[in-house]
Amino acid sequence: MSEPSPPGLFDGILARGAVREAVSDGAWVQAMLDVEGALARAQARAGLLAAEDAQAITRACDLAVFDVAALGREAAETGNPVPPLVRALSAAVAHPAGGRVHWGATSQDVLDTATMLVATRALGWLLKDLLAAADAAAGLAEVHRGSLMAGRTLLQQALPITFGLKAAGWLSGLDDAAARLEEVRRYRLAAQLGGAAGTLASLGAHGPAVLDYLAEELGLAAPRIPWHTVRTRTAELACALGEAAGALGKPGRDITLLAQTEIGEVREGVASRGGSSTLPQKHNPIAAVSAVACAMRAPGLVATLLSCMLHEHERAAGAWHAEWRPLSELLMAVGSAGAWMRDCLEHLEVDPRRMRANLDRTGGLLLAERVATALAPALGRLLAQEVVAAACTEAAATRRQLGEVLKTRREVLAHVTAADVDELLDPTGYLGSAAAFVDRALEAHAARPRKG
Amino acid sequence: MSEPSPPGLFDGILARGAVREAVSDGAWVQAMLDVEGALARAQARAGLLAAEDAQAITRACDLAVFDVAALGREAAETGNPVPPLVRALSAAVAHPAGGRVHWGATSQDVLDTATMLVATRALGWLLKDLLAAADAAAGLAEVHRGSLMAGRTLLQQALPITFGLKAAGWLSGLDDAAARLEEVRRYRLAAQLGGAAGTLASLGAHGPAVLDYLAEELGLAAPRIPWHTVRTRTAELACALGEAAGALGKPGRDITLLAQTEIGEVREGVASRGGSSTLPQKHNPIAAVSAVACAMRAPGLVATLLSCMLHEHERAAGAWHAEWRPLSELLMAVGSAGAWMRDCLEHLEVDPRRMRANLDRTGGLLLAERVATALAPALGRLLAQEVVAAACTEAAATRRQLGEVLKTRREVLAHVTAADVDELLDPTGYLGSAAAFVDRALEAHAARPRKG
Amino acid sequence: MSEPSPPGLFDGILARGAVREAVSDGAWVQAMLDVEGALARAQARAGLLAAEDAQAITRACDLAVFDVAALGREAAETGNPVPPLVRALSAAVAHPAGGRVHWGATSQDVLDTATMLVATRALGWLLKDLLAAADAAAGLAEVHRGSLMAGRTLLQQALPITFGLKAAGWLSGLDDAAARLEEVRRYRLAAQLGGAAGTLASLGAHGPAVLDYLAEELGLAAPRIPWHTVRTRTAELACALGEAAGALGKPGRDITLLAQTEIGEVREGVASRGGSSTLPQKHNPIAAVSAVACAMRAPGLVATLLSCMLHEHERAAGAWHAEWRPLSELLMAVGSAGAWMRDCLEHLEVDPRRMRANLDRTGGLLLAERVATALAPALGRLLAQEVVAAACTEAAATRRQLGEVLKTRREVLAHVTAADVDELLDPTGYLGSAAAFVDRALEAHAARPRKG
Amino acid sequence: MSEPSPPGLFDGILARGAVREAVSDGAWVQAMLDVEGALARAQARAGLLAAEDAQAITRACDLAVFDVAALGREAAETGNPVPPLVRALSAAVAHPAGGRVHWGATSQDVLDTATMLVATRALGWLLKDLLAAADAAAGLAEVHRGSLMAGRTLLQQALPITFGLKAAGWLSGLDDAAARLEEVRRYRLAAQLGGAAGTLASLGAHGPAVLDYLAEELGLAAPRIPWHTVRTRTAELACALGEAAGALGKPGRDITLLAQTEIGEVREGVASRGGSSTLPQKHNPIAAVSAVACAMRAPGLVATLLSCMLHEHERAAGAWHAEWRPLSELLMAVGSAGAWMRDCLEHLEVDPRRMRANLDRTGGLLLAERVATALAPALGRLLAQEVVAAACTEAAATRRQLGEVLKTRREVLAHVTAADVDELLDPTGYLGSAAAFVDRALEAHAARPRKG
Repeated sequence: MSEPSPPGLFDGILARGAVREAVSDGAWVQAMLDVEGALARAQARAGLLAAEDAQAITRACDLAVFDVAALGREAAETGNPVPPLVRALSAAVAHPAGGRVHWGATSQDVLDTATMLVATRALGWLLKDLLAAADAAAGLAEVHRGSLMAGRTLLQQALPITFGLKAAGWLSGLDDAAARLEEVRRYRLAAQLGGAAGTLASLGAHGPAVLDYLAEELGLAAPRIPWHTVRTRTAELACALGEAAGALGKPGRDITLLAQTEIGEVREGVASRGGSSTLPQKHNPIAAVSAVACAMRAPGLVATLLSCMLHEHERAAGAWHAEWRPLSELLMAVGSAGAWMRDCLEHLEVDPRRMRANLDRTGGLLLAERVATALAPALGRLLAQEVVAAACTEAAATRRQLGEVLKTRREVLAHVTAADVDELLDPTGYLGSAAAFVDRALEAHAARPRKG
Repeated sequence: MSEPSPPGLFDGILARGAVREAVSDGAWVQAMLDVEGALARAQARAGLLAAEDAQAITRACDLAVFDVAALGREAAETGNPVPPLVRALSAAVAHPAGGRVHWGATSQDVLDTATMLVATRALGWLLKDLLAAADAAAGLAEVHRGSLMAGRTLLQQALPITFGLKAAGWLSGLDDAAARLEEVRRYRLAAQLGGAAGTLASLGAHGPAVLDYLAEELGLAAPRIPWHTVRTRTAELACALGEAAGALGKPGRDITLLAQTEIGEVREGVASRGGSSTLPQKHNPIAAVSAVACAMRAPGLVATLLSCMLHEHERAAGAWHAEWRPLSELLMAVGSAGAWMRDCLEHLEVDPRRMRANLDRTGGLLLAERVATALAPALGRLLAQEVVAAACTEAAATRRQLGEVLKTRREVLAHVTAADVDELLDPTGYLGSAAAFVDRALEAHAARPRKG
Repeated sequence: MSEPSPPGLFDGILARGAVREAVSDGAWVQAMLDVEGALARAQARAGLLAAEDAQAITRACDLAVFDVAALGREAAETGNPVPPLVRALSAAVAHPAGGRVHWGATSQDVLDTATMLVATRALGWLLKDLLAAADAAAGLAEVHRGSLMAGRTLLQQALPITFGLKAAGWLSGLDDAAARLEEVRRYRLAAQLGGAAGTLASLGAHGPAVLDYLAEELGLAAPRIPWHTVRTRTAELACALGEAAGALGKPGRDITLLAQTEIGEVREGVASRGGSSTLPQKHNPIAAVSAVACAMRAPGLVATLLSCMLHEHERAAGAWHAEWRPLSELLMAVGSAGAWMRDCLEHLEVDPRRMRANLDRTGGLLLAERVATALAPALGRLLAQEVVAAACTEAAATRRQLGEVLKTRREVLAHVTAADVDELLDPTGYLGSAAAFVDRALEAHAARPRKG
Repeated sequence: MSEPSPPGLFDGILARGAVREAVSDGAWVQAMLDVEGALARAQARAGLLAAEDAQAITRACDLAVFDVAALGREAAETGNPVPPLVRALSAAVAHPAGGRVHWGATSQDVLDTATMLVATRALGWLLKDLLAAADAAAGLAEVHRGSLMAGRTLLQQALPITFGLKAAGWLSGLDDAAARLEEVRRYRLAAQLGGAAGTLASLGAHGPAVLDYLAEELGLAAPRIPWHTVRTRTAELACALGEAAGALGKPGRDITLLAQTEIGEVREGVASRGGSSTLPQKHNPIAAVSAVACAMRAPGLVATLLSCMLHEHERAAGAWHAEWRPLSELLMAVGSAGAWMRDCLEHLEVDPRRMRANLDRTGGLLLAERVATALAPALGRLLAQEVVAAACTEAAATRRQLGEVLKTRREVLAHVTAADVDELLDPTGYLGSAAAFVDRALEAHAARPRKG
């Protein structure tokens, strides 16, 4: 029962990495059992239960003795899997403690708290991959601080940048997403305990104490008030995952574009991967493609979870049940995106010569802005742009280098020398703050808190 | 390998009915094998393959001999599960036909066509439940054609209607959804065959013929052109499922509202179901709640599938892979909603006495519009409404019946008699076209094409 | 009041074309007035109203005399703009017909029917652009039936195709979307009339007749039963728009990719457009980019409209109001995508020489599949692929043409001659059914019904 | 030009409050002008521009002299409204400073930074309403700390709670949402400045300094690196708004349910509002309905903004443009929800007698859990539940009070006295920690930081 489930048909691609197991049915049942055990211990600490009864209940909370499929089948009778689990657990505990299983709790307490446990565990794996991906991006930013390439806007070559700057941008997105996920994990994943309608009526005056102990036992945050129908916590969890998906998908999309046959500036470095079933010459960027695919699944799932926030009264008539599967799917999709992007960035092969070659292909056109900027003090910004644009048009039409054309223009040479033109058109001299921004991103990454 | 998989922990609620198995990994692999077999037979019909080779391939397409988990693992190497399947299938076929497995096809051909097969089979089950739910709604409309109840707008009692009219509304939505799903199933679920880039290059001039035969072998529509990156078909499938979700969720929401303790006009009739884990007195409308929950999952999944339509060039770099799981999830969610709503409507217990009691609770206020309408020819519509509104306010403030108050008003009695007032306030006489609309909905339902 | 509103700040890009005006506030008010007028005429046809009263009401339904901003302000008091409109219209009609304005109808009847009118008019404009875009795609498919280019899968060059085939794919998507929109427009955009709770109580036995006449007066479909809380019609409208967005976005994405500086196979042909504010050399594909942007807005709006389907009882407590703006936004976004894509395709400059040059850049690697296919009968498919893949690797590593390498391989020359190799590597001979598929798409396009 | 625009037809409902004006076209243009002015001053502080030139530019940044509709029209030529704005602004500044307008910046810098300004201003208004709504909820929680009512799960009466506890739940959600929005507003709304490709090439080594000064001038956060294609900031903004929508919609849904004719426990207190166009007796909860409607719009818009995160390279080919309108719509929808919910809660009329009457209607059934809990030590939890459930069934079937039935049962009286039964069934004694949770929520609300 407790052995890891085999991967599903699409799981190698869409549920890659440790997160798949972390959101498996077994993981959910274990989390529910952990809640029941912790609840007993919390009540023991509050003096509501004998310590040995709490221990007996805790001992019985062993996934291996429960039949997940049977729970699934019986769940339909009550609308959730907790009642059959409580029955089975009560039976598994020696009397009299068996009668104290689930004391004061309602199904949603167990399932909501288990959700937070599943999430905190899955986030542990996701954060590991996300940070490894960020480290890899940092490595690329460092190494390629000076690797010139074309910056591209609206998919048109625009101005020289460095590959280091591009990687630093990826890094900043991954760091943002990790920071937000860690924040949510630490402060917003909370235990839930309210009993049948949120009053913890059957615990008398001990409710808040038991709630706080429960949170402590499970390593979750303690809420100020039961949150069974106030879904800001699931919303923030979903949203942080949605943000991470986007931060992971961005480098994925860039890499698929950089790996295009005609661009060829990067290549995925895992040799065994990326062959085509029919085209022997192909080397597909499987990791980047898969990361994009996983990332694309997130927004719809986040929307579902947000649209589930309007819970009716003290337990929603549908909106609660509708959360369970999308949350698992979302953790799995983003976890998978993280595993792929880590793999992708850790093995990315970068070709700076090809980058430079692509940059040079446009014969200086990319430095047009710089020439315009240099002429602007004399001509005004708008006229300078017009003059340079005309030269660009002529260079493109006559297939000459921009420098050549500029040197034929009187309105240019009136203000700069031919040597100036050559210098202006040298891309290595027109990188502005690229290196400074790389440094700032690397410093922020280095300064982020690490465990151990 | 081919035995049905046990239900998952939440499947009893969120993947109810036959659709779960119809979108299982086993069903997907079987569909892919069906495509490979049909492709061989199509090529045989086109004269490209010996009939016995096609038969040999077809015979080998037996789910029982394939290891789904292994396919899942290997899928990660090439980015989809078709290459390992083709390898395994080729090995399973006796030489020389083994070398002709998957001839001329690319992975996406097999997976896209398998998607359509999985969908057409899953829709078969879904439509069965959807039509049974519609039949049950038709039965309720028929039986309760005259069962008076309060019509409620913005959750306020508004005007008398019949429960039959309400059920006829549900029926019309279910019939609309079924009609659209059947249309999509028949005309839009098509075979896909294009080869590596959509030209079927390796089939020479035989491409269109093989494509048409393939569609015929599988009982799918034949497309005029390969649609691997033109996703209008998956979009229409997703949308028809999204529409069905809404049509199934609407009665679900109504039933949760009608079953409220304070309303009590309907009750789910499956005795074994709906107990609470902690509240012995409760009888929860599990089926309606679950149908709502399943329906709420659909819009986000539809959005994901629509946002995947912008495939790049001849095979998308992520947007294709991102479709697989949402489509399975969507079929499962809507299939489950259908199974629940069928169950719910087939066993719904209706309490016409409680309906009438709730209607009478407001002391005639619901007929206020009628009185205003009767006075309008004499007073004008706006003044008539004001007069009646004032009487309503007085009746509410003094806790008297509206009729009593109206009979004290001179501006009323100037135009109608006291007996007129009594008649105007009798709800059975103010149902307008309710019965006629029930008949029109029932006729339309009866006229819909049925198989067999 | 009735003059066209000036474009908003982003409207030139995100609300391009005639659809913007078609969903303006003025258009909405006009549609509501059209409904009130048609309702009066329908009642006259049913004998419920004098013909001259209906004419008086119809005459008063003139947008120019209503103050839209005032209606907007007063709408907040009753939760929708119909009550203030009815008050203003009643006042504008000469007594006694003024008292018969809006007779038997409720606010939702007017607003729902007006929604359908707004939609049918907006779809008229959208379909015009969509069909013009399809015609332009057909023209490109026709002209470039033989223009060789690289087919690209996962953004890697895969196999030769023609630009005609690519355009035929775009065409088939646009035709699908147009067909679905026309179907929805004709059969699913229906009048709504139910009165306060769906019974048309104040019309006595005349309800169905008035409903049918109303539909006829407005050129809308007649529903079998009021659909105020059965939202399958808005769902189908939204979904057809979502499908159209995807069909329009697909060529948009392809064109942004084909226009990349390093690819340069197409270029947008409107000379005045696409300059950069800072980069004089750039020529941005503004139309394609804008079409993609507009298309990307659709899925979220469709999801909102689908998630609004669970209306409560006889009038939803929020889900109805939540539909109004998303539907306008969706019509505007897709309308704008249509206007941009028409413009884009009608002026697209195609560079077949650049296409061929890009294709030749890979030194024959793209024909690898063909060589493998040719060797497969002798070697078996899998071995043939391995042999060719090895040659591809060597060619890439040594920067030689694939043909050269193949001719050095004994296992190749054992089965084909050197001349065969040259022929196999000629892309013009390996286009399979590309031309046939182009023809099929063009025939289907030509066969679609046209008006006039 | 700068006068407030009149409300649109649906704005009274869907764009209520100050946020509408805060996201108007005028507000957007003003924000863009503010950026251009601040950029000039930042460059002056960095020594790149004469102080008087910066002042001249700042002075010219006056919304009143710009023609928004003209900018909208010209925006289509370049794909965004910044180039025409820069042209107009340059012309409006006296030479020579005119040539220094927009120096070093690209369109996206101005538009992204303006987006953050628009957002920070709109959030100011939204937070004001959100906090007023929270204060009102706190007031209700305080006043109704002891107002007994039925807790309802799955819309069935479950256990007694207090209205104070329900309001405290609303409060905690509103406080969560406000805290998150304030966090995003303070730390994540940042200036953007990168120049054409993110290097600030034309500013030489002064890039980071100018960026930091720009942020300071505008009161925005300073990013460590340009974020033009790293959209974690827009994602967090969108998500915080989505969370707020859910937190606002939850009380809205509860209030529509509590205001049902048959429940009648609350009523919206604005007398002028909520009449029906046809039903004189109705009093619709317009504010709650409208808040729900606005809240329902958010999830789809959040999904759109998340799905726009995969920007290509250094400027997205569509995904950037696709953000503009959804962000405005989202600010407007959530702002409107906030304005409605503030209004709703500040004027909510609560009827504690009706609450108590509804609670008593079930004859003690709601205390069934308590009796079961009292019997559990003696009978065990499961058996105790069975015994009580049987008594509930009998009480319901025979229409007797639960207490009466329990006192006839031997297995009950074996463990508790008849007086115990009466005490157990008194709801005022079974509220558990309701008051304690109210206090905790109020303390947390009181402790939140306030300005001034």
